[in-house]
Amino acid sequence: MPVPNPSSQIPPHSRDFATVLELLKPGMRALDAVLREQVAHFEPEVRDLALYCLESTGKRLRPLLVFFAGWSGGSEPAPLLVRAAAVVEMTHLATLVHDDIMDHAALRRGRATVSAKDGPDVAVLLGDALFAQAMWLSTQFPTTEVCSSVAVATRQVCTGEIVQTLGGPVAAPSRERYRRIIDLKTAELFHVSCRLGARLGGGAADFVEAAGRFGRRLGIAYQIYDDLTDFVGTAEGAGKTLGTDWASGKMTLPVLCLLERSEPAEAERLLALLRGGAETAGAALTARMRAAGVFQAVGREAHAEIAAARAELTPWAAVPATAMLGELAAYLEGQLDRLLAAS
Amino acid sequence: MPVPNPSSQIPPHSRDFATVLELLKPGMRALDAVLREQVAHFEPEVRDLALYCLESTGKRLRPLLVFFAGWSGGSEPAPLLVRAAAVVEMTHLATLVHDDIMDHAALRRGRATVSAKDGPDVAVLLGDALFAQAMWLSTQFPTTEVCSSVAVATRQVCTGEIVQTLGGPVAAPSRERYRRIIDLKTAELFHVSCRLGARLGGGAADFVEAAGRFGRRLGIAYQIYDDLTDFVGTAEGAGKTLGTDWASGKMTLPVLCLLERSEPAEAERLLALLRGGAETAGAALTARMRAAGVFQAVGREAHAEIAAARAELTPWAAVPATAMLGELAAYLEGQLDRLLAAS
Repeated sequence: MPVPNPSSQIPPHSRDFATVLELLKPGMRALDAVLREQVAHFEPEVRDLALYCLESTGKRLRPLLVFFAGWSGGSEPAPLLVRAAAVVEMTHLATLVHDDIMDHAALRRGRATVSAKDGPDVAVLLGDALFAQAMWLSTQFPTTEVCSSVAVATRQVCTGEIVQTLGGPVAAPSRERYRRIIDLKTAELFHVSCRLGARLGGGAADFVEAAGRFGRRLGIAYQIYDDLTDFVGTAEGAGKTLGTDWASGKMTLPVLCLLERSEPAEAERLLALLRGGAETAGAALTARMRAAGVFQAVGREAHAEIAAARAELTPWAAVPATAMLGELAAYLEGQLDRLLAAS
Repeated sequence: MPVPNPSSQIPPHSRDFATVLELLKPGMRALDAVLREQVAHFEPEVRDLALYCLESTGKRLRPLLVFFAGWSGGSEPAPLLVRAAAVVEMTHLATLVHDDIMDHAALRRGRATVSAKDGPDVAVLLGDALFAQAMWLSTQFPTTEVCSSVAVATRQVCTGEIVQTLGGPVAAPSRERYRRIIDLKTAELFHVSCRLGARLGGGAADFVEAAGRFGRRLGIAYQIYDDLTDFVGTAEGAGKTLGTDWASGKMTLPVLCLLERSEPAEAERLLALLRGGAETAGAALTARMRAAGVFQAVGREAHAEIAAARAELTPWAAVPATAMLGELAAYLEGQLDRLLAAS
């Protein structure tokens, strides 16, 4: 998005959200403590490696969803919410360790990836060990519900990545396929984060379901936003190298949208470029997208998803969690608008 | 070992064990059914891939441990035992999918590995998805116990592999280190398989612990046996290419034992060979080991572990499970003796 870590500097444009994040500081501190506690469970030889992954100063977006969906206004976070936030974050961090192997990524958030630093073999095993530890932590609840839902979400996240990988650049351009992939690889864990937060926060059964649907829609919007940042914005703002999705032949929404707005012959030429791994197409492509109105169109789709997410919570306006989730939706809307304004 | 699958042909030398395996046929059939049921949980696009891994005609050693440790003499297997057997087997299969990436293995049990067939990226993701599904299945019990213990064992299995990988061929020869690695990477899941079997079979608390210790000792013995098969026996019997551990610089017990029995200068030369990845050293090396009495010495150590495993169950002679676990110990003893006779 990138959502600022409560402990880091808040940019001036998000003053309101900064106030909201301030409320989460005790929760985020407790989350850090639980993540660090997990390191002690690893054998001495791998503790430094585990710590290296867990102390990632990432966006902590999934924990935010857990805390917001379970919000009840107290100043101290409920221990069960903190633990669930740690489970989803640790699961996410494990998948990132594996993603970096596949992307041959040297850096993540300015630090060497495990894959680059210790080799892909260690990265495969460490990702597995982190996920196993996340699963163990998920059993530290009175019932099997947390473990069960995070296990299913993880299977779906991996399935989304498999579907994306298997099709590769040769898959036929299809909005349905794109939607399906981002639903599996991103929206599923957003959904579970919100559901678990609402549930552990003591929400009514219907609110728990509504919060889950909010999470799914917001996850879709977030992934569309993230896919936009491959073409617009700055590498610094996005925290990644621009053009990598395009270079690896990913059929994201901006690409699909450009194909739809191109003459058949032109669309064929674009597809050939995409399939050939034409890394250098970046600058010219961005100009073409801009001229064809792709960014604004994609932005409208992301906005529509956020609106749909909000609508899920309309019947629950009186619940404190609704206001917090609404703030997050507003923050994403703001980030999206700023990105579009810069495009 | 290789323990014959109940459905496959039983060689004449193991007639007694064949009778025992006959008793397990309903359990193994039920296990197959549960594993196949899991495929339906995957999204349509990845079901064939999941099935390919789950229908592996492997040794099913860990399920055997679950069934034996939970044995109470009935003709139909208890559904909870079958489910636990499926959890440990599926977890094991997931780790094999990842092992094959690291070993650059083209074949496993005569079939192309996922890594060779669909590429390492798909193999990373599929291994993750299989483990996630195993974790989901482990939540289908009244308590979090199965999930919790399998998650811990998996973290330890991966840790054992990390310790082995990080040290690589340059690690100082150390029996302590070897023991630690095989305890983590093999004995841990044997331990949990026996513990869960005994527990779900309704065993007394003290028997559950004793069965766990039996499993750990048997796991150590099995790994020593497996490490021996890298140097003696036939590729067919071992179901793998001989000399691969040596070629990848693994400091296994036969190597450690040879180093101990060599003059310092000779030991240095051997270490240099091992560290250089001298694949061709196989035949000469085997002759040297034979001359130095390495195989018999290593065999004695494996036998001592099996005896120690048996001793754990001495106070539990009246429990039906003890007789079954004893049969498995006897089978491993027999396999070990045949291997040593052929060395």
